[in-house]
Amino acid sequence: MKSAIITVGKEVLTGKTINTNLATIASALTEIGIEISRSFVIDDIFNEYVKVLDILDEDLIIFTGGLGPTIDDITKESILKYFNINSVIDEETLERNQAYFSRMNRKMEDTNLKQAYFPEDSIILKNDLGTAPGLIFKVDKKTIILFPGPPHELKPMLDKTIEYLIKQNNIKMFSKGFKLTGIGESDMEVLLKDFYHLHKSVVIAPYASVGEIKYVFTSKNEFAITKCMIDFKEKFKQYIYGNLNQTLEEVVVNLLKKQNKIISAAESCTGGMFASKITNVSGSSEVFNESYITYSNEAKNRILNIDKELLNDHGAVSEKVAFKMAENLQQITNADITVSITGIAGPTGGTKEKPVGLVYFGITHKGITKVYKKISNGNRLMVRTRSTMFALNLIRKELLNE
Amino acid sequence: MKSAIITVGKEVLTGKTINTNLATIASALTEIGIEISRSFVIDDIFNEYVKVLDILDEDLIIFTGGLGPTIDDITKESILKYFNINSVIDEETLERNQAYFSRMNRKMEDTNLKQAYFPEDSIILKNDLGTAPGLIFKVDKKTIILFPGPPHELKPMLDKTIEYLIKQNNIKMFSKGFKLTGIGESDMEVLLKDFYHLHKSVVIAPYASVGEIKYVFTSKNEFAITKCMIDFKEKFKQYIYGNLNQTLEEVVVNLLKKQNKIISAAESCTGGMFASKITNVSGSSEVFNESYITYSNEAKNRILNIDKELLNDHGAVSEKVAFKMAENLQQITNADITVSITGIAGPTGGTKEKPVGLVYFGITHKGITKVYKKISNGNRLMVRTRSTMFALNLIRKELLNE
Repeated sequence: MKSAIITVGKEVLTGKTINTNLATIASALTEIGIEISRSFVIDDIFNEYVKVLDILDEDLIIFTGGLGPTIDDITKESILKYFNINSVIDEETLERNQAYFSRMNRKMEDTNLKQAYFPEDSIILKNDLGTAPGLIFKVDKKTIILFPGPPHELKPMLDKTIEYLIKQNNIKMFSKGFKLTGIGESDMEVLLKDFYHLHKSVVIAPYASVGEIKYVFTSKNEFAITKCMIDFKEKFKQYIYGNLNQTLEEVVVNLLKKQNKIISAAESCTGGMFASKITNVSGSSEVFNESYITYSNEAKNRILNIDKELLNDHGAVSEKVAFKMAENLQQITNADITVSITGIAGPTGGTKEKPVGLVYFGITHKGITKVYKKISNGNRLMVRTRSTMFALNLIRKELLNE
Repeated sequence: MKSAIITVGKEVLTGKTINTNLATIASALTEIGIEISRSFVIDDIFNEYVKVLDILDEDLIIFTGGLGPTIDDITKESILKYFNINSVIDEETLERNQAYFSRMNRKMEDTNLKQAYFPEDSIILKNDLGTAPGLIFKVDKKTIILFPGPPHELKPMLDKTIEYLIKQNNIKMFSKGFKLTGIGESDMEVLLKDFYHLHKSVVIAPYASVGEIKYVFTSKNEFAITKCMIDFKEKFKQYIYGNLNQTLEEVVVNLLKKQNKIISAAESCTGGMFASKITNVSGSSEVFNESYITYSNEAKNRILNIDKELLNDHGAVSEKVAFKMAENLQQITNADITVSITGIAGPTGGTKEKPVGLVYFGITHKGITKVYKKISNGNRLMVRTRSTMFALNLIRKELLNE
């Protein structure tokens, strides 16, 4: 089965928006073995839809964008016009959208009405985060799928669409994988050289982002993929933190929940990013009560009782200060596990002895405090992000007693 | 002048690589007034080049990717074959590439030879970071430009190419704009109806992201764009926070620096995101010493001295608690301006009276505490992000006495 993905929107053609939807949809399709033969970005002008639909010979055509309420949003209308398909109002969508506007304390405009019209026999993909539903319909033996442009609205619909495609096409494809942290992609590729050779019937795809890598294995052969997973886990156990659907912070929050433990942090260079990651996990209030950002030396002294002398003698970015920050935080909060993060995020403030990217971490757990040191590369945001990921992984390992 | 951008590569079609090159090239072209009418992603198969070149009627066609040394890299060869153009060896490129390999302590393979072949009369774009030069040539009145795929190799060539295009086409183009927060894109579009009409010689492009919108104005007429900027500023002054190169947190940190003021936050639902934004600005240590994340009621009571009765009677998400959090934080930290954020980020925890997305904000400044209320839509992360942006904007307005 071959597919084409069409992104609609001036904002992509002018470079103001990076086309992440293409990567999101393409990797989901690739995982179930559907090939993407081409992808286009077009302007939202009727004639451009015509030009592209005239060319396409793929069995599956996916559009994203242009489902909004304004007169510029013409994806649905243009495609239905091209194929000469009528649409009818869907009362459920209309009610959902009316409820959405009343929840937001806003008046629903007349232009929003068109968002409730669909071809008969189409599958409507509900939108819980906006007013533009997606839809799936068939015409001339092709399957056409329309998604809204905002990535967070598209994502839940994509999950349902993948389920639909698996069922409709009787797809048997096994896709599994792991998420890793603490090792870079190029180092992994060196280590994987023989591995690729040993598992030829499995497609192995790495996806790297700041501080982590995802490895996805895809194959029609369930036994081959199981064997591959076992081998991979054996070889890279120390870097694997979870499966494809988990974030590192979710894994940490789940471990804390399971062990009935409370965590607290004292952050300097990460400035709240660690706590923000933890609290972005729904239900984190079970394991997290409080956290401190002690940015200045004076705050480290007043809030965490770090000796002024210690700060003067060793500097805020030091093993000794990281140690005391975690230890004292434990005494102040009485949390079961505490973490401290102090370092130089850059771009300024680095020296020969203490370069930009140098970060110390303290962890106090079961009455013992351990200190770790890491030098991260990249810009200010990358150093902060990598340091936050590193701290989360330290806690994961500490909780697992690894 | 109309252009098309073609990205070549399986890794983009499988979602493994996000197509950032499109955004990089497209925004550079847009800024000098060259329109991108379409963009394609194709697989590196000769027939795919033929299909796409058969369709294209643009004056400027840009390809990225497929200039490497392997037999799979066929962009240059395929395009020259399509147009029936001969190529000759460029001695300078050959020497550069030989030098590159000896610098890397590696042997140059025979396959690398093809990277030194170009059509006669083409402009060679030197590559200081790899062995694949880019090139510009003309055929059938079209300008064809080829760039290598790696973004860091492409970027310096793009800068030179933009200079070339400005000179060749005698381009005079002005691009300016504003960043706004506190208003949604659809509300803006309603308010802008007449505005578009009044400024027909200016291209007005909105780019929305979570919690903010960027408006970019482009025109060949400097007077028209200046007039447009003045009108826009007059009409939307209350929503404009800065120019295109500034983030909201940078604007806030700069205002604090100018007024020589220290800020501190007490965060509940945003869980450190506010402090993390502030501290991502380099130099924020001049205006930020400390911050507290008081997630549980017990922490709000113990750290910020919020009465247990108040918490019980009104709930943590209430006007009264937001007020006391900001006020007490000021007394504890002695900061010049303090902010509190308490709300329901969701997806659970909402009630009819206090729905998901409801957030209260307290600001204490010059001895006076003010409370604000906002309901944000979207998922957990979006509610948190929008609330953080809202708080930053409240502080900006407070500091400007607006």
